[in-house]
Amino acid sequence: MTPARGFEPAEFEQRTRKAQARMAKDGLAGLLLLSEPEIRYFTGFHTLFWQSPTRPWFLFVPAAGKPVAVIPEIGAALMRQSWLDDVRTWSAPNPSDDGISLLHDLLSPLAQAGECLGVLKGHETGLRMPLADYERLMQGLPGLHVADCTPLIRALRMVKSEAEIAKLSHICGIGSQSFAQVPTFAAEGVPLGEVFRSFRREALRLGADDLPYLVGGAEPGGYRDVISPPTARPLARGDVLMLDTGATWDGYFCDFDRNFAIGHADDAARRAYDVLWRATEAGLGAAQPGATCRDLFEAMRAVIAELDDQGGEVGRLGHGLGMQLTEWPSHAAFDATVLQENMVLTLEPSLSYGDGLIMVHEENIVLRSDGAHLLSDRAAPELPII
Amino acid sequence: MTPARGFEPAEFEQRTRKAQARMAKDGLAGLLLLSEPEIRYFTGFHTLFWQSPTRPWFLFVPAAGKPVAVIPEIGAALMRQSWLDDVRTWSAPNPSDDGISLLHDLLSPLAQAGECLGVLKGHETGLRMPLADYERLMQGLPGLHVADCTPLIRALRMVKSEAEIAKLSHICGIGSQSFAQVPTFAAEGVPLGEVFRSFRREALRLGADDLPYLVGGAEPGGYRDVISPPTARPLARGDVLMLDTGATWDGYFCDFDRNFAIGHADDAARRAYDVLWRATEAGLGAAQPGATCRDLFEAMRAVIAELDDQGGEVGRLGHGLGMQLTEWPSHAAFDATVLQENMVLTLEPSLSYGDGLIMVHEENIVLRSDGAHLLSDRAAPELPII
Repeated sequence: MTPARGFEPAEFEQRTRKAQARMAKDGLAGLLLLSEPEIRYFTGFHTLFWQSPTRPWFLFVPAAGKPVAVIPEIGAALMRQSWLDDVRTWSAPNPSDDGISLLHDLLSPLAQAGECLGVLKGHETGLRMPLADYERLMQGLPGLHVADCTPLIRALRMVKSEAEIAKLSHICGIGSQSFAQVPTFAAEGVPLGEVFRSFRREALRLGADDLPYLVGGAEPGGYRDVISPPTARPLARGDVLMLDTGATWDGYFCDFDRNFAIGHADDAARRAYDVLWRATEAGLGAAQPGATCRDLFEAMRAVIAELDDQGGEVGRLGHGLGMQLTEWPSHAAFDATVLQENMVLTLEPSLSYGDGLIMVHEENIVLRSDGAHLLSDRAAPELPII
Repeated sequence: MTPARGFEPAEFEQRTRKAQARMAKDGLAGLLLLSEPEIRYFTGFHTLFWQSPTRPWFLFVPAAGKPVAVIPEIGAALMRQSWLDDVRTWSAPNPSDDGISLLHDLLSPLAQAGECLGVLKGHETGLRMPLADYERLMQGLPGLHVADCTPLIRALRMVKSEAEIAKLSHICGIGSQSFAQVPTFAAEGVPLGEVFRSFRREALRLGADDLPYLVGGAEPGGYRDVISPPTARPLARGDVLMLDTGATWDGYFCDFDRNFAIGHADDAARRAYDVLWRATEAGLGAAQPGATCRDLFEAMRAVIAELDDQGGEVGRLGHGLGMQLTEWPSHAAFDATVLQENMVLTLEPSLSYGDGLIMVHEENIVLRSDGAHLLSDRAAPELPII
């Protein structure tokens, strides 16, 4: 059944309360958030207009009470439909003052009191406003301390609500149905670019809102690159085709791939597939609340090592999933994050084989008290042949 | 005819030489670029992998010679297909050192010589790396001066090459064909969300690679919001439907909209449409090399003032177009940019009318020595009725 779009106001209230509880512990008098997922997380503000880099957007989360939006006029109508009461706007773009004086007014009391403001400065974040404006804003607020609030936001966003899980489950279902259609349009002689185009159209037909991410490859016996756009080369017998999709529904992503052999699979490709399928099984078994991302990584790596003990070039074996294609945490040796109930994760073992070939498997899961539940339909145990 | 994908190496060499000539004038010993369009502009590195916020990417453009890429290992295969010779990689993600020590080594000679490094800090830019990492990098390079290189990059990217114009013309043609199909799937009773889905599938069928941007609205007599996702409300007789698309081909965008009345158009909507159609005509006439963006803005505003003298909430009446949905410059009173041959621009007059209704028209043009040439098929002179 298709879940409801959007969220109840109670969801945003709860997210805000949780943030404020953590802010009190961390000694933060407010958060200044600039990025699409964070602003959406606390307000529900959902628009593709973020594609335009022209205008900055700001959300202030105070120590108590509702967040305050400081946004371009063009977003006012949409933001005023949210649960917020205080939406401040300016006519943007305005290069000489793109929200800076409004922010200055809002943050001055904190600066005068010598308070600490949380800003996202850490891993997997960026600054979505002109750096010169940021520096000017901070120079105009002497006395204001700035602290990195990445751990706070990360801790909140990593654990999903049931409403978020319903959206993620829905789009993963659409992704699975889309992959099931691949044999109807991918065949010997069809250019890879056409396979991509057909996949996009099929996923939309099956209910995806959008496919912001679709990558893949197809070459004889395997593929060498997992991030390139498609070539016009026709699929040939003996190719291994991989498609990896980040489709969205109501602003939530699936992120998993599938591998197919065209006409015939050689032993090396079948062996790589088998190792990765079993590495995923090991990951599914290890994905338990209380284990760490490192544990999960080690469980998959132990199987991958049957064929490849180098670790590959992807840098990790999966990650968090939600409003973004990739989110915290990382299944990697460096990440000691403790897995918790209601985290939504990818398991993404990869390996190198043969002469510079690479293979990747990926599934999407939600962690429950009893372990991993698949959101994607499990890949076939043997490399499917089209 | 479909243009070739990608660019000849000579194009990247020329872009780099132009940047270096301007760097010499500005006293810059190098540029450090972090964002997708800039890295693609100088290398051709083209991937949807930027959807993942996890890893930072860096390109250093020296005062002479080819750029140097400092990128995650996962991008090495693709970047090594570019015209660059020097591609340095690390196993990313690595929160304790995500490229920072590689950058430090690269930039140390500049710091020791007290040179000046250009970084994008200005309008319509952001910092696509963790702010804490940026601060740490700069603290570790005492002696290095940092200057905003936005004017330099802006001046380069605003004027398109013939190869870029061919791609932009191609996707604008696909956009026009897609809009021509709207009457085949938009009709009384069809939910707006289904109209969006059909538009996406049609544009893909007609050759678009992707539709990163599709917004619009439909309400009785007009629409109130131009950035929201679609509702499930069925189209009704008397609605004005607007669709605004940013479709891409080979990494270049079209960005224009079309308006349609469902079954019947009331006088207010027809009048608003007429004013905007003539405002666009005025813009087409005013778009001449040597005029300024402000001139173009004033030409359109003078017509819009027949119905609305408030200026509206969009903040400008068009903008640059290219690798991004919206680029420099802005057709606004604040922008004195002089229009040049081979700029690709949108003309986007909008107005408010009735009880909180808004209407937007948009066309895409390329400036030639003799003035504006349309890349989009000109909208019908009267509000089309479906």
